Amino acid sequence: MVRLRLAVGYDGANFSGWAAQPGRRTVQGEIERALAVVLRLDAVALTCAGRTDAGVHARGQVCHVDVPAASDTEVLRRRLAGALADDVRVHAIAAAPDGFDARFSARWRRYSYRICDDPAACDPLQRHHVVAWKRPLDVEAMNDACSPLLGEHDFAAYCRRRPGASTVRTLRELTWSRDDDRRLEARVVADAFCHSMVRSLVGAAVGVGEGRLAPEVPEQVLAAGVRNSRIMVMPPHGLTLEEVGYLDERALLL
Amino acid sequence: MVRLRLAVGYDGANFSGWAAQPGRRTVQGEIERALAVVLRLDAVALTCAGRTDAGVHARGQVCHVDVPAASDTEVLRRRLAGALADDVRVHAIAAAPDGFDARFSARWRRYSYRICDDPAACDPLQRHHVVAWKRPLDVEAMNDACSPLLGEHDFAAYCRRRPGASTVRTLRELTWSRDDDRRLEARVVADAFCHSMVRSLVGAAVGVGEGRLAPEVPEQVLAAGVRNSRIMVMPPHGLTLEEVGYLDERALLL
Repeated sequence: MVRLRLAVGYDGANFSGWAAQPGRRTVQGEIERALAVVLRLDAVALTCAGRTDAGVHARGQVCHVDVPAASDTEVLRRRLAGALADDVRVHAIAAAPDGFDARFSARWRRYSYRICDDPAACDPLQRHHVVAWKRPLDVEAMNDACSPLLGEHDFAAYCRRRPGASTVRTLRELTWSRDDDRRLEARVVADAFCHSMVRSLVGAAVGVGEGRLAPEVPEQVLAAGVRNSRIMVMPPHGLTLEEVGYLDERALLL
Repeated sequence: MVRLRLAVGYDGANFSGWAAQPGRRTVQGEIERALAVVLRLDAVALTCAGRTDAGVHARGQVCHVDVPAASDTEVLRRRLAGALADDVRVHAIAAAPDGFDARFSARWRRYSYRICDDPAACDPLQRHHVVAWKRPLDVEAMNDACSPLLGEHDFAAYCRRRPGASTVRTLRELTWSRDDDRRLEARVVADAFCHSMVRSLVGAAVGVGEGRLAPEVPEQVLAAGVRNSRIMVMPPHGLTLEEVGYLDERALLL
């Protein structure tokens, strides 16, 4: 057997998230099925770096899979393109380095969240991955409110709790920028994210940006350590997993 | 009455083209309906610069409409955003200059056609406006084959004929470029286009780019002046009307 590393992209709209579930169309389920068909195996098991929720997209998801040796990766890549629907693509396939694990070797994950804050100005061709927001957002206020959240903290107030799981994470970057199309983009990087964390952090920033929350609220909520109903969990379709960093590539970020 | 100039964008996927037709969802029909509701009129008549076919998108469509004086254009813009579905947007509204006609004052139209020529590499989030192509395309050969088509010609070989209508057009630009995502983009500018002309010109270039047609075929077909079955009419969803030029802005292009 050899371990392959896969670069994967998908439009999350028509998937019940990443994780395989009986009777549901999921990204993991679709790729495992296509791999089994193309490789003529009964079943394969795919592991990913970031288990995205229903409706969340990916451009730079990373996975690994163990397959019998002597598969031609370029032939496999081409055949997978034919075996998969066009809302999920395996962009690249390569032999993984020794000891590589898509999930446990990952050092950081980078997500984007995209919002258009002038509903008349939103580009219809981008509406599946850019959230239309009715009220104008103050990007500078959002950046000021987000900067105290950086670093290692217990993000319990921004996570949907799972029994026994830690909610301590290191948030490396959470910055907002605006392009000339009335489109805002958050760049969010952490070692890892707990469930619904990016969408809750974005909801806190949007609350400040539209003037509904005082600038210090996101930090106060973090310190309180419990979920707060004033913090919205933003819709999934604005969120895209853009990139996953591994040890060898870490120098690019630091 | 005053004449308003509208900047319009749409995702063509769920429209039977621009022109209003009974019992069909069309861009003209949807915007006329929304304008009538917001302005509390029985009916309004919208004129556009480029009557796009079913499935074709627009980012820079321009229209005019005559409405009773004293409408606040910013209020109208906001209300239209609420009255329209999110696959069509009126981005901007302004009083039109004296004598302005969205169709007859237009000096040029610019379209893009987008293709990804490595099906495994295509971005699922762009699949609604970028055509996936199975064979690799040679951009240099496509540019060489397109350049003899520039200038004023009878484009009958590249048009679906309409009785009594001229097929003489001035093609100002038809250039191909490639970005790093295995995505090609054609930039196509003419005074005006006849029916299916951009998609046929793109089909000729793609035939050359994939090596199926000799480089001189597009020019020979133009000179022959009759439609040729070797020239594909490319799918509509790769095509986007990007910009319309008017007299006052003409200096920007020349």
